[in-house]
Amino acid sequence: MEWIPITSRQNPLIKKVSGLKEKKNRTAENSFPVEGATILKEALQAGKVPEAVFVSAGSAEKLEPLLRACLPEGFSALYKTEDFVFEKITSEKGSEGILSVFSYSETDLPLPFDKGGFYLALENVQDPGNIGAVLRSAAAFGCGGVFLCGGADPYGPKAVRASMGAVFRMPVRFFETSTALLAFLKENGIFSVAATLSSQAVSIKEIQFPDPVCVWIGNEGQGLSESAVAGADSLCIIPIENMESLNAAAAAAIFLWELKKKTGERNG
Amino acid sequence: MEWIPITSRQNPLIKKVSGLKEKKNRTAENSFPVEGATILKEALQAGKVPEAVFVSAGSAEKLEPLLRACLPEGFSALYKTEDFVFEKITSEKGSEGILSVFSYSETDLPLPFDKGGFYLALENVQDPGNIGAVLRSAAAFGCGGVFLCGGADPYGPKAVRASMGAVFRMPVRFFETSTALLAFLKENGIFSVAATLSSQAVSIKEIQFPDPVCVWIGNEGQGLSESAVAGADSLCIIPIENMESLNAAAAAAIFLWELKKKTGERNG
Repeated sequence: MEWIPITSRQNPLIKKVSGLKEKKNRTAENSFPVEGATILKEALQAGKVPEAVFVSAGSAEKLEPLLRACLPEGFSALYKTEDFVFEKITSEKGSEGILSVFSYSETDLPLPFDKGGFYLALENVQDPGNIGAVLRSAAAFGCGGVFLCGGADPYGPKAVRASMGAVFRMPVRFFETSTALLAFLKENGIFSVAATLSSQAVSIKEIQFPDPVCVWIGNEGQGLSESAVAGADSLCIIPIENMESLNAAAAAAIFLWELKKKTGERNG
Repeated sequence: MEWIPITSRQNPLIKKVSGLKEKKNRTAENSFPVEGATILKEALQAGKVPEAVFVSAGSAEKLEPLLRACLPEGFSALYKTEDFVFEKITSEKGSEGILSVFSYSETDLPLPFDKGGFYLALENVQDPGNIGAVLRSAAAFGCGGVFLCGGADPYGPKAVRASMGAVFRMPVRFFETSTALLAFLKENGIFSVAATLSSQAVSIKEIQFPDPVCVWIGNEGQGLSESAVAGADSLCIIPIENMESLNAAAAAAIFLWELKKKTGERNG
């Protein structure tokens, strides 16, 4: 394989890629880092091509067969860095020694509004691991798209890792406020269901989800904002005991599973 | 309130509590640290009493009303530490400034075998956040107990935090090997269902869960071991698309939810 060697931590490309750990630099560069071989493989299988791939010298031999099998013919932005240089770009302890950089254009997927289906809205979910886990479940159950109002960046290193490649398969849209998202959903004829612990909420066991529908999940500590709850078309609760609430990603998984089942029943 | 002041990072008690970040010291001291006010409150509400509570000087004024309301009368092991001393015992960036130490005896809960019900087995689940999230969902859905074969320690700082206090409500038992756990379940008349992606598995939509039943969830990367799958009484799959698998805590949440629903239906 043709490797471009990088031997200095002061290399301008290394400085730029290291900067992608921060959201403001990801936005400025319009690209984000993806760590590990599994997610790179997932992305390539989904037809996405990285801008560049960096491999640490200590891992190059082991990773070469995979890269040879997966990377498109003629892919030339393949860098082999000294191990101490790689340490500067990775966010992971015990990294596998491979980091790819993707353009955001690779995640710009169409929202399948015309086909109906179900969507998720995450309001101010703060834990990047939760965001990534939700994207992974959403992709696994055929969710049409995930809408984000505030909260953690789904393209940060922890979220991308937790998504296991779902960032390349799941349409994601950002909204400044829940009011803006509520209006957008209304315009597109999508019913909003707020997941709350309110005593006025209908149990998920009894609720009829219209088609299309978007289920709103709130912040880990506070749940949904008053304005999101007030603006929703209906309220829904997962009945629990003993604990005050479920983890946001666990609640999302259960909603996605029920949505998937009910859509399947409706479509025969 | 009566505070015992601690002003030195060399204080023997501080050294001991700082050591509880490591599992070998938790085992030796038979106790584990719990960070944050919410989980302490949960534990006290569940009738558990800490061995000691440490509050940073900068947070003491803010936390005093809560402690006054929650701690049992006459509780005397209440330490106020200088902020730079507190930093030595906490595992959290941006800590709330409160850490309690509990004895493992407070988590030694009876397994309600005589009542039937459902259980979870986690084989070699490595992410402490996943372990904690599973315990939280298990408590919320009335699971009878969680069995652990290998994997992360549910009493480590990240797992305790993710459990949101469920470590005080959920019976947890450890087994050296899946073979030992399979034998234990068989002895107690509990049916083992292995969650797998095998094509021979029955869909969770169609499966009949016997009572009592234990669902086995495997490692994040590898799933269940061959011996666990071979030893199980039946295999079950959550049907997914696009992705290779679900996050372990998401899969556990969906199993717990279905188990809870089916138990509810059976009991009227």
